[in-house]
Amino acid sequence: MLITFEGIDGCGKSTQIKLLQKSLEEEGFNPKIFREPGGTKVSEEIRSLLLSSENTIDPITEALLFSSARSKLISEVVKPSLDKGDIVILDRFYDSTIAYQGYGRKSMSLSDLHKLNMIASHGLVPDITFYLKISIEQSEQRRKNLTKDRMENSGNDFYSKVITGFDDLSRQEKRFVVINALNSIEDISKKIKKKVMVTLGKV
Amino acid sequence: MLITFEGIDGCGKSTQIKLLQKSLEEEGFNPKIFREPGGTKVSEEIRSLLLSSENTIDPITEALLFSSARSKLISEVVKPSLDKGDIVILDRFYDSTIAYQGYGRKSMSLSDLHKLNMIASHGLVPDITFYLKISIEQSEQRRKNLTKDRMENSGNDFYSKVITGFDDLSRQEKRFVVINALNSIEDISKKIKKKVMVTLGKV
Repeated sequence: MLITFEGIDGCGKSTQIKLLQKSLEEEGFNPKIFREPGGTKVSEEIRSLLLSSENTIDPITEALLFSSARSKLISEVVKPSLDKGDIVILDRFYDSTIAYQGYGRKSMSLSDLHKLNMIASHGLVPDITFYLKISIEQSEQRRKNLTKDRMENSGNDFYSKVITGFDDLSRQEKRFVVINALNSIEDISKKIKKKVMVTLGKV
Repeated sequence: MLITFEGIDGCGKSTQIKLLQKSLEEEGFNPKIFREPGGTKVSEEIRSLLLSSENTIDPITEALLFSSARSKLISEVVKPSLDKGDIVILDRFYDSTIAYQGYGRKSMSLSDLHKLNMIASHGLVPDITFYLKISIEQSEQRRKNLTKDRMENSGNDFYSKVITGFDDLSRQEKRFVVINALNSIEDISKKIKKKVMVTLGKV
């Protein structure tokens, strides 16, 4: 089973992923967690290129670099883990490419980006995608003391388009589960666990 | 004007590019020369990832990384140079992706690769592509004392498919000029210069 988490920075993905990991381990599973971009040596090097504030990167190159890092992660670790029967949890996947590089940057047509996503994911589609929905203001509030990377420096106009992207995807894709990220950590965690357990046939 | 040079390693691309550069400079032009993958800081870092023999890289990731490096080179230097009216000469371009990643590695369908090429090249198409044709045996003979990088370690079966790729492209694409790379350096150089001058309307 492949589970992905999406949403803008500050939405609480990392916290919820850790809690889901703990829940699954308590149930006897051994979930594998990876973050995008990253998760392999080559992908982490691509991550540094992408996030370094020293680099100016045009929108098309950005989409291609995210896709390169994704492809390496999928072929090297995600596909082999899924083949062994493991549960894999991804902190971002190709929906982020549609939201950030498609809606946010308008790097290329959404249909070209979808094609690129299918290439980079080696055809993989998540079983469940949890979208933690939060407004720009709430996100800013939560992250106000953190140093921003190149992506995070893109401004509110950019983030507002990204949110529209995630919102559109959540209406188009049946695998999306939309979660109000302002609910309590415990409530969100319970909801996520329940959905996963039902999908695993454990409830 | 965008001029590209293609062919397997050892075909004499670098030598001919230098000679064409000299000829064009003598005629009062100021041609810009770039190699793929490379030509920008980010692209050179991607080049190291791609060519390092320490990295194992699956065929899809390889195609995406070459495309990322290409996109950065095109947006950062090639397009601005062409917009200024410069002649740009590229040591490899997207035909290498079709030949190496398409025919050689069979990373994905040729139509997906063509789509990827159009994305990565920001829609640019070369005016002339010189294909320096040489057999594997001749290439090996010329390079026998050199240390091989990750790409060059791929073996003769791989190179034979790459040559088929270039041969097919040379029949499909009108911009291709096929040159027998076993002719003398001077003869090849004269032929290339003549073609460029005719295209520039200088002959």
